Amino acid sequence: MLQSFEVRGEPTAAELRLPQLREEMQQLNIDGLLVPHDDEYLNEYTPAQFERLLWATGFSGSAGALLVMMDSAVLFIDGRYTEQARLETSAELLDYEDLRAVPPWQWLRDNPGHVSRLGYCSKLHTQEEIARIESTDHIEPLQLIALQAHPIDALWADRPGGDPKAPFAHTIEYSGEESASKRRRVGEELKRAGADAIVFSNPNATAWLLNIRGNDVPHTPVALCRSVLQADGTAVAFFAGHEISDELKLHLGDEVEISQESEFGDYLRQLGAQEQSVLINKTVCPSFVYQALAESGATLREGDDPLILFRAIKNDVEIEGARQAHIRDGVAMVKFLHWLQENWANDMSEIDAVKRLEAFRAEDDAMQDISFDTISGSGPNGAIIHYRVSEASNRQLENGDLLLVDSGAQYLDGTTDITRTIALGDQSAERKDRFTRVLQGHIALAAVQFPADTSGYQLDILARQPLWNAGLDYAHGTGHGVGTFLGVHEGPQSVAKRAATAPLRAGMILSNEPGFYVEGDYGIRVENLVVVRESATKGMLEFETITMAPIDTSLIDVSLMNEAQRDWLDSYHQRVWDNLSLHLSAADAMWLREATEPLS
Amino acid sequence: MLQSFEVRGEPTAAELRLPQLREEMQQLNIDGLLVPHDDEYLNEYTPAQFERLLWATGFSGSAGALLVMMDSAVLFIDGRYTEQARLETSAELLDYEDLRAVPPWQWLRDNPGHVSRLGYCSKLHTQEEIARIESTDHIEPLQLIALQAHPIDALWADRPGGDPKAPFAHTIEYSGEESASKRRRVGEELKRAGADAIVFSNPNATAWLLNIRGNDVPHTPVALCRSVLQADGTAVAFFAGHEISDELKLHLGDEVEISQESEFGDYLRQLGAQEQSVLINKTVCPSFVYQALAESGATLREGDDPLILFRAIKNDVEIEGARQAHIRDGVAMVKFLHWLQENWANDMSEIDAVKRLEAFRAEDDAMQDISFDTISGSGPNGAIIHYRVSEASNRQLENGDLLLVDSGAQYLDGTTDITRTIALGDQSAERKDRFTRVLQGHIALAAVQFPADTSGYQLDILARQPLWNAGLDYAHGTGHGVGTFLGVHEGPQSVAKRAATAPLRAGMILSNEPGFYVEGDYGIRVENLVVVRESATKGMLEFETITMAPIDTSLIDVSLMNEAQRDWLDSYHQRVWDNLSLHLSAADAMWLREATEPLS
Repeated sequence: MLQSFEVRGEPTAAELRLPQLREEMQQLNIDGLLVPHDDEYLNEYTPAQFERLLWATGFSGSAGALLVMMDSAVLFIDGRYTEQARLETSAELLDYEDLRAVPPWQWLRDNPGHVSRLGYCSKLHTQEEIARIESTDHIEPLQLIALQAHPIDALWADRPGGDPKAPFAHTIEYSGEESASKRRRVGEELKRAGADAIVFSNPNATAWLLNIRGNDVPHTPVALCRSVLQADGTAVAFFAGHEISDELKLHLGDEVEISQESEFGDYLRQLGAQEQSVLINKTVCPSFVYQALAESGATLREGDDPLILFRAIKNDVEIEGARQAHIRDGVAMVKFLHWLQENWANDMSEIDAVKRLEAFRAEDDAMQDISFDTISGSGPNGAIIHYRVSEASNRQLENGDLLLVDSGAQYLDGTTDITRTIALGDQSAERKDRFTRVLQGHIALAAVQFPADTSGYQLDILARQPLWNAGLDYAHGTGHGVGTFLGVHEGPQSVAKRAATAPLRAGMILSNEPGFYVEGDYGIRVENLVVVRESATKGMLEFETITMAPIDTSLIDVSLMNEAQRDWLDSYHQRVWDNLSLHLSAADAMWLREATEPLS
Repeated sequence: MLQSFEVRGEPTAAELRLPQLREEMQQLNIDGLLVPHDDEYLNEYTPAQFERLLWATGFSGSAGALLVMMDSAVLFIDGRYTEQARLETSAELLDYEDLRAVPPWQWLRDNPGHVSRLGYCSKLHTQEEIARIESTDHIEPLQLIALQAHPIDALWADRPGGDPKAPFAHTIEYSGEESASKRRRVGEELKRAGADAIVFSNPNATAWLLNIRGNDVPHTPVALCRSVLQADGTAVAFFAGHEISDELKLHLGDEVEISQESEFGDYLRQLGAQEQSVLINKTVCPSFVYQALAESGATLREGDDPLILFRAIKNDVEIEGARQAHIRDGVAMVKFLHWLQENWANDMSEIDAVKRLEAFRAEDDAMQDISFDTISGSGPNGAIIHYRVSEASNRQLENGDLLLVDSGAQYLDGTTDITRTIALGDQSAERKDRFTRVLQGHIALAAVQFPADTSGYQLDILARQPLWNAGLDYAHGTGHGVGTFLGVHEGPQSVAKRAATAPLRAGMILSNEPGFYVEGDYGIRVENLVVVRESATKGMLEFETITMAPIDTSLIDVSLMNEAQRDWLDSYHQRVWDNLSLHLSAADAMWLREATEPLS
């Protein structure tokens, strides 16, 4: 089983661990210590051995920070996690603050007299975060003490696993472009920006650049490593004690030097000694990288990382891989949806659904992992947008529920992410109205044609307008970028209210996922992945929907749909049938035939 | 006649005036001199006495800059004016650069060795512009020499008019809020920003704040003046030698001190001597204001000018004034459109149309000015988005033309801005298709309902999508803010591709003006003004269209319109009829009855 359902937070954590941390702080002669949620590789999903915030407080959310002082401690969490934090942690030992409204730098400014020497591990914070604290006008002097390692690392007795797993090649049949070519292209951009080198601190960047993958991070198929690329296209990769097979060495070739994490700092200082000019984005550059370069004499050139856009624009091999992965993922989804329809009434739980879906996906050999913890939210749990089902929250499926299942998998040829909302028994006219509006928004975005210089924020309204017409909306973005057997969330593209200005380019993969939620009652979301492609009309772009699974037509109020919307759904369902039917058992195919019947 | 049709550019200007400027530059010991288009008040429409760029070069466009050097000169113009600049100026004496691609700071960086001492008048440039030149890495040292007055002002022998015209009160029946209340509100925002004072360098700001208007600037009813507001709500207004009537003094009251432009610099230095903290936005703050404050010891606090948002949100009196002004403007438009239909075939020109429209508007006593030079573009001239008809460009109206008329007026109770496209004779199916798409976009934006935190960029696609569906688009924004008997272009709101993040708020007035253009052939635009208001659905906003004039139904391909679109147009036309018919002659009313007949 790839997904775990254990209850992770333990309210006793702070009671046990804050005293240990404070003892350590005295040794270090600091009276404040930051414990961030982020890890040293800026991973989206934090490996267990880097869950320092969980260790210190019991809080298991995906974002947050702790400020430990000698006689108090503040846990910073965002609005999503207010309730969860109170359930998982001890309110006697912790104060709570809103991470967005009052981030640590602001709390320190507004609460003078608590901290005079603030310790932080310079591997766990971006340079921007640290610079923000440093540049704030503090009423009492505040000294920042950079620590090479976080004190927790020494205190954490039963620290889980973390043995590096062997990285492997992501071969040309999947990547579609040799690493040498990628390195040349990024190198050219470095020259254009007047830089000699760039540092990649996040493993996903190195994975794309060197065409390698690994198994060190949950749900993201990467090895924990960093790399430095020179403008001439040569690179050095720093692994965290991994065994590098001869096969992989051959794959990496002569232009990629293999080194170890322990050499990384010296290498950075060597760049400085050579007076190299290094392209840096402070908002994602770990403080220790920035400091090592700055102190050793490197020229720091602020600018965007060119790799991000290159990675986002998929080549033909990656796009075809994504299509194929989505067909196999669709087969698993059809098996699951059919199974669910037959079995939901037989005392099933949300966890049973997750397990069954994962098992269907695992029937495919190319399936390596799920791409994130499946959201399986029935009834009121469906309204919790970032719901994670655990043994504690698990709910039996009931007649009359809506079940929202948001899931995905990592296949060697592509990453999937799909949401379907399924009616368990009869549903009210109101719910059908809401589902139909969400679907209409999904269709409006899926079917749009737009000029080549358009950004996602310009399209976002299309997914919302059917809800807006009824005075409704949803409180999340509409679409995020998706990687190729890599991060399920990937920039720079997005579709959202917020204006992220990166234009959509042919070859980008995005999600299309409008929703609607009634707290304490139900949640609805319809999500497919799409690829941006050139349309038949010159200068215009459009989306190709690549997710293949039926949408529950029993939830549609057909009278609300216009002809173009009905046609879109019928033609989508025809494509689903055409792509999947040959790969299904007779029983599943019969079920799919019915599920993809035209509306009219 | 308020609009002039004279040919303004004279290609001999540079030949005459560059030598004079170079002589003056030698006197001043500078080898470079900037001549910007902008004037010392950042006016949108430059008064004749401030048209320094026109004086020096003959170029009459609305944006640009000149860099005079001892043996050459560069005219910086944007893409709109490439052709016009070559017609109006001497290519033997001037080099041309793209103002956006290579602004002066960049040209100076890329062309070292030409200028070592650069003179600029510190009243005519924002602090940001000057700081940009200063902070650029120049290969050869470049010294900036701030001049109190521009050398042109002394050389310009027959400098036009410029006698200050008496300002007058914009009374409570039009403004809807006493100046004291406005000053308190802005003052509270200053306190919130930790500032003691703010400087208003643009007359439109002072006009709104003090409820005064004037006649010094073409098409914008303001007096040339500046003001400084203190956080306690008191203010000092600096006039340019205007006569201030006792009535106006009474209107301004005790809390507003009247001073003269000549005292302005000393007053700023006094703020500095008092160590006041002044709220500044470098992108619009004239360099001399910034420098006077900084050098005299003021604390400069960077932040947004709070007046801008307050001014944009109209109160009930202003909104009702706008409605009434638009009814009277609509009466003039109906007279014009009727007259045009009867007379266009009788050897009429674009200028004849402009004159007639202005005459119809001037029949209303409250009409003070046009709000900008009427764009009257027939046939190919309609495709020039910022067309200004002159004696040279004037074209006779021909059978088969489309005529695009974009015009507006300044009434005491409101500012109007309307575009209608009129068929002169039969039109092709293609033109009707394009017109219908433009109209569909206009309707989609006019009819949208949206949540309270929405910005204009989120709505922009609605106006474009019918064109996008056919692979078409237009290269301008969709909507701009409009003032109350003030600037016809006013921030912070807009509807455009570019993400200006100011949310739309109830009470804001905007234009809704999609278009479509075929170079050398025709132009189409449909423009109404709308007011943002709360919709009947809680938490949602919508637009009320306040422009009242029929849209040419002979240009509509009704088969492309869906029922909701036809209903919108029919109901709009019914409102036009209901609002205007009683104010029309029998003949005009009969014409309007027909022009507003339902489509189906």
